[in-house]
Parts: sequence; structure tokens; C-alpha cells
Amino acid sequence: MPDFAPHIGASDRSGAFIMYTLYSDQRSGNSYKVRLALARLGIPFKLVEVDILQGASRTPEFLAKNPNGHVPLLEVAPNRYLAESNAILWYVAGGTTLAPEDRIDRAEAMQWMFFEQHSLEPNIGAAYFWLALIKGGRELQQHALEDWMENGYRTLGVMEMHLAGHRFFAADRFTIADIALYAYTHVANQADFDLARFPAIREWLDRVAAEPGHVAMDWQPETLTAVQ
Amino acid sequence: MPDFAPHIGASDRSGAFIMYTLYSDQRSGNSYKVRLALARLGIPFKLVEVDILQGASRTPEFLAKNPNGHVPLLEVAPNRYLAESNAILWYVAGGTTLAPEDRIDRAEAMQWMFFEQHSLEPNIGAAYFWLALIKGGRELQQHALEDWMENGYRTLGVMEMHLAGHRFFAADRFTIADIALYAYTHVANQADFDLARFPAIREWLDRVAAEPGHVAMDWQPETLTAVQ
Repeated sequence: MPDFAPHIGASDRSGAFIMYTLYSDQRSGNSYKVRLALARLGIPFKLVEVDILQGASRTPEFLAKNPNGHVPLLEVAPNRYLAESNAILWYVAGGTTLAPEDRIDRAEAMQWMFFEQHSLEPNIGAAYFWLALIKGGRELQQHALEDWMENGYRTLGVMEMHLAGHRFFAADRFTIADIALYAYTHVANQADFDLARFPAIREWLDRVAAEPGHVAMDWQPETLTAVQ
Repeated sequence: MPDFAPHIGASDRSGAFIMYTLYSDQRSGNSYKVRLALARLGIPFKLVEVDILQGASRTPEFLAKNPNGHVPLLEVAPNRYLAESNAILWYVAGGTTLAPEDRIDRAEAMQWMFFEQHSLEPNIGAAYFWLALIKGGRELQQHALEDWMENGYRTLGVMEMHLAGHRFFAADRFTIADIALYAYTHVANQADFDLARFPAIREWLDRVAAEPGHVAMDWQPETLTAVQ
């Protein structure tokens, strides 16, 4: 039988409780998604800060955990790691109202989460990374910036059209699809995107931020470790 | 209760059976994923061929169905459309062995499917589109090609490392994660990628092609309609 029971951590082979460990960079929108979901669900976790700008996600030690060299990464059982922010969201939110299991609701939440990774993150996320986090990034990425802006605005247009008729992205309630899309949209203004022409998106951003248990992008749990 | 029952089509309001309609481009790897899954599952469907090179996915009529302007698109109920190839795979394969529902198996299948949309499709898929389908595409995209090759080879390296120790990507069996990753990997050689140095990937490609019910990329069902 599928296990959709809510859960708050991993177990070792004897079944003993082990707290999740999340490898995350404070400035990464993809990492923020998972921190936001865990905070919202009240799931305790240990945070390991990985400084991606210093190459900490490309060390041999980190690549042994995630060969793709990205954060976030969740240790779901001793030495068993789950990558890809949106897959982690489905995992940690399984069994809660944040992860719809009704067939069409689930499909539509997934649709928006694949849209996020394919249309939003590579454009608005990339622009955010280079413009907001990297000194001199604008000059370094001048050739790519035009594409990111064009595709990013197109993506925002698709979201605006949906939100003009819906309070949330799927299942008529706040779900992990909203968390996934919120991460980079709420900092799009730091990446040259002007949200003035997207009133439905701005209202939705406010609605997400007003959800109980919401935390800001720089929120961290108390248990924090830094890795090289 | 979640509905995970196998199914072979949509229903109208009275519950009457309506065959799925799939909007697809014959040359699109993302569209091929869905055709392959439906064929493998023996699910009948009506195919509407959308010539994306002629702009047929950007007409007002098509954008009314999918504001993001992409194929594949599945009509799951009258005038209700599901987009994003990997979300469609989860939808049509729900309740079958192709879609793992065990908690960690499902998470790992999703991990690889998000990896596919974020790391594989935008590099190997983009290179395939411009090099194999567009006359003069190599010259037009010379500036992007170097990035696609570098990122594409990195992606293939991650897949090779996994397949060196596993027969399939998730759940220790053939799933929709394999279908998602197969679509563009099996035509990577048409996009300048040399798979000679990826023996585990080549064996996996053969394994997928040997699965019962496999169809080639140019396979079509008998019910076919073309749209402008």
C-alpha cells in the first residue's frame, strides 16, 4: 500500500526516529521552497548551509550525495538523499492538504510545478541569481539577459491569466504548487521584472505570504551547520 | 479518496466514456513521451497533429486551450486540458505499475522527471530541435550550442553514474521516469552528442526499446487529425 501518512522525519534501520537533514543555500529560491514547506508543516529539521557561490555544492563530498551538484538536497534516511526541490516538496508534504491526491488536482499541481522548473526557474530564477546575487553578473550575462526577460515575462503572463480566475494554482487551495511558484516570483522585482502589470500575481503573492506558518526567504531553523 | 484506478479515457458530465484527445507534434520528444505511454498502456486516443514549426501551437485557438503554447496537451474531459508532458504521464499512468505510488519510489521517479525537464530537455532537447529539425538551426543558435553541449554532457554523466548501478531510474523497474528520460536521450546522437562514452546509457536505451508495447517516435494511432 502506498504510504501517504504524514511524517516528520526519517527512520534508521531499527525504525528509530532521525530528523531530516536539509542541504540548502540561504539565497536559493529552490532551497527556500523546502524550508517554507517544512516550516509551514511544523516539521523539525537540521539545516546544513551550502555556500553555492563558494563551490560547496561541487565538492567531491557533496557530489557523492547529489551527482547533479545542486541544492536543495534532503537526507530522507541515513545516506539516502532526495534531490530536485519540487520532488522534495511532494515527499515532505505527502499526506497533508498541501499535496493534493485527488487525481485531477494532483495532475494540475504537477503541471504547474513542471511549468515552474521549465518556464519560470530557468528565466526568472537565472536572472535573480545573476542580477541579485553575483557582483558584475549583469555584465557577465548580458547576452542571456534578453532571453530571460522575454521568456520570464511570457511566463508571468501565463500565471497572471490563471490567477485572474483562481485564488491558487491547483485544487482551489494553497498547495505545494503555490510554494514552488512563489519562491522566485516573490523576488522577481530584484531581477528587473516589473510586476505592476500583473495585479492578479501581486494579490496572490500577498495571499501566500498571509498563509499561517509562512516564513521569509532568510528564515532558518535553530539547528544549523555550515559545510565548506 | 484518491482515485488511482486505471482508466482509459475521459468522461462527460453524464459519466459517458469519451476518448482522450492528444495534441502532439510528431517530431517533439515531449509529445513522444505521451504517445509512448498511451501505446504501452493500450489506451486508445485521438491524435491531433499540431505543426509547431508552422506556429500551430501559438494560434488563438490553441492558446485558449494551453496559454503556455506548448505540446503535448491532453484533453482529459470536455474542454479540460492538461499540459506539461511529465504531468500528463503521471495522469495517464496512474494506477498502473508505470507510476510508482510507494512513497520513496514515487519521490525518486519525480526527482528524475524534474531533472529531465530542468537539466536534459532544455539542453539535449533544445540542441535536437535546432540541429535535427530546423534548417540552418546550427548557424542560428551557434551562441547557445556551446552551453547546450556542455550542460547536456554533464546531464548524461549524471544519468550514466546512476545507470551504472541501476537497471532503471526509479523503483527498480520500468516506469514513466524512464519514458520521460528516454524521449530526448534516444535522439541525442542527432544533436551532436556522442554516446560512445556512456555504455550504461546505451544499454538502458536498448532495455527501454525492448519493453513490451514499445513504439518508435514516429508511431501514430489510426485516429489522426491535423490542425492549422
